[in-house]
Amino acid sequence: MLEITSVNNELVKETVKLQQKKYRDKENKFLLEGEKSVKEAFEAGIDIEHLFVLKEKSGEYNYLSEKLILTNEAVLKKISTTDSAPEVVAVAFKRNYSLKDLKGAKKVVLLENIKDLGNLGTILRTSTAFGADAVVLFGMECADLYNPKCVRSSVGNLWKIPVVYIKTFDELQKTFLNFERVATLPLAKDYLKNFKVHEPVLVMFGSEADGLSETLVKFATKKIKIEMSPSVESLNLSVSCAVVLYKLFL
Amino acid sequence: MLEITSVNNELVKETVKLQQKKYRDKENKFLLEGEKSVKEAFEAGIDIEHLFVLKEKSGEYNYLSEKLILTNEAVLKKISTTDSAPEVVAVAFKRNYSLKDLKGAKKVVLLENIKDLGNLGTILRTSTAFGADAVVLFGMECADLYNPKCVRSSVGNLWKIPVVYIKTFDELQKTFLNFERVATLPLAKDYLKNFKVHEPVLVMFGSEADGLSETLVKFATKKIKIEMSPSVESLNLSVSCAVVLYKLFL
Repeated sequence: MLEITSVNNELVKETVKLQQKKYRDKENKFLLEGEKSVKEAFEAGIDIEHLFVLKEKSGEYNYLSEKLILTNEAVLKKISTTDSAPEVVAVAFKRNYSLKDLKGAKKVVLLENIKDLGNLGTILRTSTAFGADAVVLFGMECADLYNPKCVRSSVGNLWKIPVVYIKTFDELQKTFLNFERVATLPLAKDYLKNFKVHEPVLVMFGSEADGLSETLVKFATKKIKIEMSPSVESLNLSVSCAVVLYKLFL
Repeated sequence: MLEITSVNNELVKETVKLQQKKYRDKENKFLLEGEKSVKEAFEAGIDIEHLFVLKEKSGEYNYLSEKLILTNEAVLKKISTTDSAPEVVAVAFKRNYSLKDLKGAKKVVLLENIKDLGNLGTILRTSTAFGADAVVLFGMECADLYNPKCVRSSVGNLWKIPVVYIKTFDELQKTFLNFERVATLPLAKDYLKNFKVHEPVLVMFGSEADGLSETLVKFATKKIKIEMSPSVESLNLSVSCAVVLYKLFL
């Protein structure tokens, strides 16, 4: 079994590069940090290239024994992005989705130019939990799904439903022409509480800083707002998504 | 007007100490970072001791002109906890609540031993938005409300409703004896969707890692679970709170 103990090893250096988006894109790989992430990815059928495992913990990874690389804490600290080194870091292949994976989807969540990685991971988790068939990341400035922080905050829910990047409005329009398209806006007239949707439905959310763009507000066929105390200006994006998806999808 | 340009100034050193809980407790003060936080605290009547402001931005803080300390980016970087230095950091006095502030409250949220500061701030924001009358932080291991990260994630909603620390179960029991006490548990039999509460009501949530303690599960008069896909193990705590409070309080 391969054993690597030097942080200057070539494979270690290659692995560290996957902390950056451009290398993840180039290699089509990403990092899984910690026991739970690795196990959940494995169970979901994610293709794992190899695992760096703390030597004394290797017995717990028999299910991937032919892919184990025994190592030490220094190497794990080097290749991971968390404050304290996890006992395992895996290199896995990204699962790439395209427009055709939206075929047949009846409940779709759209996030426009979302940048907060914690929110993105949390929203994927919530969308999966509340029965979305797919998530669309729309716009040129969306965060990278495979950023380690997003992988962590999704808590194993990054690959249970298709997540499709759509870059142009033209493409978006064609794909969702026949959908009821719901925008959540603070100035909408209709309240969420008594709102009913008809499937297929696309539920759209803007970024934390900018909200939904004018283009998507115009694209919406329905506009709703969440009931809330006038003393509070807005909700956290993950919170808005959760409340709206719970109410509309379940 | 006072001007401080050295990071070794005594007042700067005193201010930096407020990044630590023991000094915040001792001095009964905390830090407000950034324009928005300062403005919201001021508008909510929070007592501000003084403001460190980037010299060229001082004109924007005329509403607190007698408390301004002109300074530079180096000092602001030193006293703030954010990655990039904000244009203003204020030292403010904590608002302390006690059990008597729960008098007359009809909708109360309880968080047991919550440790994630981002979640704590977000839940305060959500609780205020959805009409809670107060929040109780129960247990010996609760995070500090006045930690800068919690202040940030509450987005100005730290002081709109009373937040009361209760340390012992005895005290908790006495305070909420006549309340309907709702626990959200993955193994509960009743679903949230069709659940109705009678006020006064206490809605209880456990920590991210451990959930609700046995003691509080027994203390509950009603147990509910959130409907969700069997493929997802759990929800983020802020998300669970949001969905439950929206459904029960609004």
